[in-house]
Amino acid sequence: MIQSASRLLHINPTRFQSDFTTLSAIGATLDGGVDRPALSAAHLAARTWFAGQVQSAGLEFHVDKAGNHSAILRSADPAARTLLLGSHLDSVPNGGCYDGALGVLAALEVLRTVQDAGLELPVHLEAIDFTDEEGTLVGFLGSKALTGKLTPADLQNPRGGRQTLLDGFSRAGLAEVSLFSARRDPAGLAGYLELHIEQGPRLNQSGIQIGVVTGIVGIVSHRLSFTGRANHAGTTPMTERKDAGLGAASFMLAAHQMVLERFPDCVVNIGSLHLTPGSFNIVPGSAEMALECRSANQTQLSQLQAALLERARTEADRFGLGLEIQALGQHLPAPLDPLAQAAISAAAEERMLTHTILPSGAGHDAQNLADLCPSGMVFIPSVDGVSHSPNEFSHWEDCLNGGNVLLGAALRMAWL
Amino acid sequence: MIQSASRLLHINPTRFQSDFTTLSAIGATLDGGVDRPALSAAHLAARTWFAGQVQSAGLEFHVDKAGNHSAILRSADPAARTLLLGSHLDSVPNGGCYDGALGVLAALEVLRTVQDAGLELPVHLEAIDFTDEEGTLVGFLGSKALTGKLTPADLQNPRGGRQTLLDGFSRAGLAEVSLFSARRDPAGLAGYLELHIEQGPRLNQSGIQIGVVTGIVGIVSHRLSFTGRANHAGTTPMTERKDAGLGAASFMLAAHQMVLERFPDCVVNIGSLHLTPGSFNIVPGSAEMALECRSANQTQLSQLQAALLERARTEADRFGLGLEIQALGQHLPAPLDPLAQAAISAAAEERMLTHTILPSGAGHDAQNLADLCPSGMVFIPSVDGVSHSPNEFSHWEDCLNGGNVLLGAALRMAWL
Repeated sequence: MIQSASRLLHINPTRFQSDFTTLSAIGATLDGGVDRPALSAAHLAARTWFAGQVQSAGLEFHVDKAGNHSAILRSADPAARTLLLGSHLDSVPNGGCYDGALGVLAALEVLRTVQDAGLELPVHLEAIDFTDEEGTLVGFLGSKALTGKLTPADLQNPRGGRQTLLDGFSRAGLAEVSLFSARRDPAGLAGYLELHIEQGPRLNQSGIQIGVVTGIVGIVSHRLSFTGRANHAGTTPMTERKDAGLGAASFMLAAHQMVLERFPDCVVNIGSLHLTPGSFNIVPGSAEMALECRSANQTQLSQLQAALLERARTEADRFGLGLEIQALGQHLPAPLDPLAQAAISAAAEERMLTHTILPSGAGHDAQNLADLCPSGMVFIPSVDGVSHSPNEFSHWEDCLNGGNVLLGAALRMAWL
Repeated sequence: MIQSASRLLHINPTRFQSDFTTLSAIGATLDGGVDRPALSAAHLAARTWFAGQVQSAGLEFHVDKAGNHSAILRSADPAARTLLLGSHLDSVPNGGCYDGALGVLAALEVLRTVQDAGLELPVHLEAIDFTDEEGTLVGFLGSKALTGKLTPADLQNPRGGRQTLLDGFSRAGLAEVSLFSARRDPAGLAGYLELHIEQGPRLNQSGIQIGVVTGIVGIVSHRLSFTGRANHAGTTPMTERKDAGLGAASFMLAAHQMVLERFPDCVVNIGSLHLTPGSFNIVPGSAEMALECRSANQTQLSQLQAALLERARTEADRFGLGLEIQALGQHLPAPLDPLAQAAISAAAEERMLTHTILPSGAGHDAQNLADLCPSGMVFIPSVDGVSHSPNEFSHWEDCLNGGNVLLGAALRMAWL
């Protein structure tokens, strides 16, 4: 039953591409990308368009209290669980057309394809557009609310600033107090599948068509402040200085070397560094840096974190500096469901698409669902691994392959 | 004549200290420093108080078109040249009580002491308070105007911003168009002497009472921009990155090591570094740094500059980065007059004060006068070398020694 349905069905390539072209024009930027930060006017316009497509297709349309927008194709069995397929229509500021949008449109297309075929499934199929995946406001706001992981603290001190969040709620007609009621009972969820561009170069470089995501990396972030002594850069002899910049620089190099040599499956980034007071003629008295490391393996991530912080202390001591370490948020690694991975691999095999397993280095809404229901992700190649940029690009053939693998995997998950 | 006058005369310690205490209260900050940026209300209040002291002393008072304030003790010879003694009453924002203020008060005290003694000199003595030494507005505005080194371009794009400059002129009653007429004919100048705190730790550490300044360091400044490729810090493998931060960090360490090993008489500072786009989860695409190096020796300064820029290119290449180099302003090293140095040493000897020669790592108004008339500087110890800080401190005994050495050196220069 699964295999015959999956072999017979294909998503409608013309409809899928037409949707993609239309959506890419909403919030389009002159350089070929889109600017649709969560709950901005452009993002809300994209959602309005999506709602229209859902309704034109004769699918049920639903918006929950966290603003998650859904198309629903009901099973004949009213007691059926729901198989979620989704992604997000918001973008980073000045982002690309593929990140998120592709997954939402593919999910909608799967529903239309199943509906067009008159196929009866033992699950409700729901194509969902999660609110604020990119974190312009809170980060994963929609999927956290749906999975009961959202906390009041998330809303009080959001990364995009409290006023930005309130302004967005106001534009979208959302009430802060009601957000938490978007929570769903996990017992009602049959699973979650998401198609996404890889956002990295591995598939593109190796010429492989489909990535079967094994898990989403955990992320640990710290703010490190090296403190020395601000001093006159002309009158203070070199040997008398406590230059906070030197400790920071030495740590930056050491951190990269450490990951390359000892933690090949992890990554580290020092994305910002601020020297104070920051003038040409004053020896930096403090150096504050943003440190982030990621791994799909929790043990490795813990070991890397410990090794990095120990090394920061060593470098601070070496240059006679103080060191303050502020632990910021962390996301645990989220392994994805083996059966969902098997369903994706089988769907790729069936269409004779080359595929490989790989972890996701970026965060996705799937990480919030992974511990509540069987969850899986399909990656397609990103040309040169570019993402979060107007230059983000995937070949349309790959997008289409991804849509069909999502369909095949969804049918397998439906009958699980 | 010189030696007998110099041996007999001493500045009035009570009057000098009373002046210092009163002046330190003008623009005083809660943490024991002063906040008297050039042409601020506090700075203008200090100048008004100074004018009152000059007039109470029965000295001639003069303000030139650049706002330089002077006390003048005329020689009986109307054709006499003028021996300038001075420093500045402005401070850096939240600076200390000694930097500049000590030198102006000592200069005034020298004039009063000579006047009180009824000593006839073959020069006019002028105690001058230069405008904007610290560069809150332009930098050395008063001494540049007096020496004819000020250019219209200096005023169009001043380091403190154009509006700040215009607001200051307005508060001080200065007219931009008239500033240039503050220029004096160098033929009328017999010399320039300045007492100043060292602003570095050498005298304090070695327990030496008087520093005879050999010259003022030259300063070369550049802005360096390392350019890589901003990329997703989760999905871009470590080996695929072009991380601009790494090139910058590696250069920072290399620059310091180079100066320590190959240019022991020079200093280098990287006082600011800005990584772009500057977020936790994006590999830095560019790193812009403020690079400054100093030496009292022009040859060494040129060699150091060349070696630093070459090294920056090497580090950029090593990390696959681009490099843009923007040359900013430079000050040439200003050697101070050997006769002025001899006069200062002799005055220290005469009072049995230990003394040593040393270069000034900081800029001073003397650097503008040094190529126009015989110029010299007297340093006294700064406790722990601290300056440009409310914690700036010199023992009063050292201040008094400095004032008497300035007096002895001025008498020697007067009869040169």
